[in-house]
Amino acid sequence: MRAVDLIRRKRDSGELTPEEIQHFIAAYTVGEIPDYQMSAWLMAVVLRGLSRAETAALTEAMLRSGRVLDFSDLAGRKVDKHSTGGVGDKTSLIIAPIVAAGGLKVPMISGRGLGHSGGTLDKLESIPGFNVNLSLAEFRRVLETCGCALIGQTAEIAPADKKMYALRDVTGTVENSSLICASIMSKKLAEGIDALVLDVKTGSGAFMKRLEDAVSLAELLVETGQRMGKKVVALLTDMNQPLGRTAGNAMEVAESVEVLAGGGPADLRELCLELAAWMFFLGERVKTVEEGKRLSSDLIVSGLAREKFREIVALQGGDPGVVDDPRRLVRARQTLDVVSTSAGYVAAIQCEQLGTAGVVLGGGREKKEDAIDPVVGLVFHKRIGDGVQRGEPLCTLHYNSDARLAEAQRLAEAAYRVEPEKPLVLPPLIYQIIGA
Amino acid sequence: MRAVDLIRRKRDSGELTPEEIQHFIAAYTVGEIPDYQMSAWLMAVVLRGLSRAETAALTEAMLRSGRVLDFSDLAGRKVDKHSTGGVGDKTSLIIAPIVAAGGLKVPMISGRGLGHSGGTLDKLESIPGFNVNLSLAEFRRVLETCGCALIGQTAEIAPADKKMYALRDVTGTVENSSLICASIMSKKLAEGIDALVLDVKTGSGAFMKRLEDAVSLAELLVETGQRMGKKVVALLTDMNQPLGRTAGNAMEVAESVEVLAGGGPADLRELCLELAAWMFFLGERVKTVEEGKRLSSDLIVSGLAREKFREIVALQGGDPGVVDDPRRLVRARQTLDVVSTSAGYVAAIQCEQLGTAGVVLGGGREKKEDAIDPVVGLVFHKRIGDGVQRGEPLCTLHYNSDARLAEAQRLAEAAYRVEPEKPLVLPPLIYQIIGA
Repeated sequence: MRAVDLIRRKRDSGELTPEEIQHFIAAYTVGEIPDYQMSAWLMAVVLRGLSRAETAALTEAMLRSGRVLDFSDLAGRKVDKHSTGGVGDKTSLIIAPIVAAGGLKVPMISGRGLGHSGGTLDKLESIPGFNVNLSLAEFRRVLETCGCALIGQTAEIAPADKKMYALRDVTGTVENSSLICASIMSKKLAEGIDALVLDVKTGSGAFMKRLEDAVSLAELLVETGQRMGKKVVALLTDMNQPLGRTAGNAMEVAESVEVLAGGGPADLRELCLELAAWMFFLGERVKTVEEGKRLSSDLIVSGLAREKFREIVALQGGDPGVVDDPRRLVRARQTLDVVSTSAGYVAAIQCEQLGTAGVVLGGGREKKEDAIDPVVGLVFHKRIGDGVQRGEPLCTLHYNSDARLAEAQRLAEAAYRVEPEKPLVLPPLIYQIIGA
Repeated sequence: MRAVDLIRRKRDSGELTPEEIQHFIAAYTVGEIPDYQMSAWLMAVVLRGLSRAETAALTEAMLRSGRVLDFSDLAGRKVDKHSTGGVGDKTSLIIAPIVAAGGLKVPMISGRGLGHSGGTLDKLESIPGFNVNLSLAEFRRVLETCGCALIGQTAEIAPADKKMYALRDVTGTVENSSLICASIMSKKLAEGIDALVLDVKTGSGAFMKRLEDAVSLAELLVETGQRMGKKVVALLTDMNQPLGRTAGNAMEVAESVEVLAGGGPADLRELCLELAAWMFFLGERVKTVEEGKRLSSDLIVSGLAREKFREIVALQGGDPGVVDDPRRLVRARQTLDVVSTSAGYVAAIQCEQLGTAGVVLGGGREKKEDAIDPVVGLVFHKRIGDGVQRGEPLCTLHYNSDARLAEAQRLAEAAYRVEPEKPLVLPPLIYQIIGA
């Protein structure tokens, strides 16, 4: 089996066997197949596609390229959630403690922000002392102790994905559902989970702008997970506007604590209850999703979810006082309101531009090696359908340096479209549920 | 201009500007763009195609990646011929001396055999002492002295092509007309020629099996050469059966000398006269192609062409006695007839398999670094349409080692299809002439 023959077969729209894919990925991981053969194959995949069976085989091969965790000796079902990313998406910080407080185990391996969308690790690191770089042994210990642990990808988990992801980024081979699916699922299934809830976002601030693209990715993710014996559902959720009221690492931690304390913005709270409910349902903690929602809500009202978050923060070296008093989190020194230049109603939001404005302020990365400022970000005052006066703030920039302030301001201003008439239809929070 | 943006544009069927292509190729040649980005781009090109303008720009960029020879101070037009390769194709050895004897300059940079098709350099090296590795200064001196020089590609000529060709070979990106065109034309136009005759082969022993593919490649080659200010024509010629009676390096030298001496098989002689005639015509040595054919024929009859070959061989360090007595060339120690298992007529020949049989006997390379045995090969006794008795030889294998003899025999046997009825139509020698 020569690499060039597998490349040629895919180029000519042929199908590869699971054994061929397994061999190809294993040989690439150890460096026997060079980057230039992998990138040619990846481009052929982007332009010719992979079948469902090939996608599953690729996912499995990438999963098997590293360690697959096994927590089967720990009590309770292991469940996790993965989001395809967006602006202001901080649900992991809220639902991980809810679900752990409800008795399931949540071994969550997360990513960092890249481009306009944020990352759970960056948010957690805005809590003084919080350590996301646990060894797998420490990960296990924290998980066993409090039912949840939140860490970053380690070199042991899906090393093929790490190599391929870096290569895809510089060879124009990111945009393909099968490759995205294999990248997500290989990492998630390496966590040793029984069930997975996917939050697949669509809209102007999502990776998949069009609903139909998000639906096919969601179907592929669900089918691939189910082929590998896991319980998987995907919620298609809206990202035509930011989720909640803030985008910015420290600000999002504060907003998450608000929700855990029973408050917070309605859209964020509602989505968290829904996602947690599905995790409880797939984890067989409840008999119906409705019951799962009630349980999630009860865990917030009783304070148990917030208490669980405090416990996680403390076990991972962070300052648990932040959970009681989020004002302990450092704030940006300056603010600037972005105001509407006309009166009317918010008709649409270029949500990705808002995320990019946050990156420009220093809150995200343009390149992997960029440092970030955890305290900068945006506070959103208006949602789609809201009325707005001329000169009234649409959002507020929180910043420490005005080096690129004008650019961020321009981006944020241009992101809002205000029209005289109130829009007839507002985007729903959840479009569809796949795999249920 | 980032490489990844050019890759993405081509992936999405966009067009690149000449400046972008120039930059991309120049940066790749010096190693600023890595192989893994080039191979992704090449795969996008194979699957999305290049426009005529992009193909010309790529050709020019590859040409400019190295030295472009200039022989304008030498008297006489500079002309060359290039063949896309086949089995038994030894025309270069015959027409280079004919055309040089007729007063034009032939600065010929040739390749080695790879796969089932032979290469001019390997054939020349079967002449004891013949040196194809001349420096560019020596190349010029031989060209000036006798009107013709035959060498291999040097590091100074089209280095981008050298790098890209090696990469294409291992990344499944060989099969694309634009890439083939740019590879051929960048090298040929670097020779400092005024005119080029292309022999584009089609049929079971050619790279392009289907006539329509050969026609489009020929059109692209001609148009690209003409865009760059050169006189170019392409002859579409048949490769459904070997050209002439032998395939094998030393045997083909002997057969070439036969033609130069006024003999040799009719198909080979006819094609050589035609190709040489077009070179004379494009080189403005004659007013019509017919006149070119008469001149070529006269140069053979008069012995001047053979004398010219002797001169070239001597100047490049080879044993000129071979030209007078080809029996000086070493012969293989053993022969094996491949016989027909039924009586009838040869209806079709899987010509590529015959070439591969020669490779299996050791006469060609499966990998670039393979050593070859110059004296092994095949002698063909039957052409398409010929009658054959049961047990009568179709061809004869000449070999030194029986290590893979059975495999070669199997290939050769299976290559001939013998049927009871004589085929109604025989393949023509020349299908079409493009660019005239």
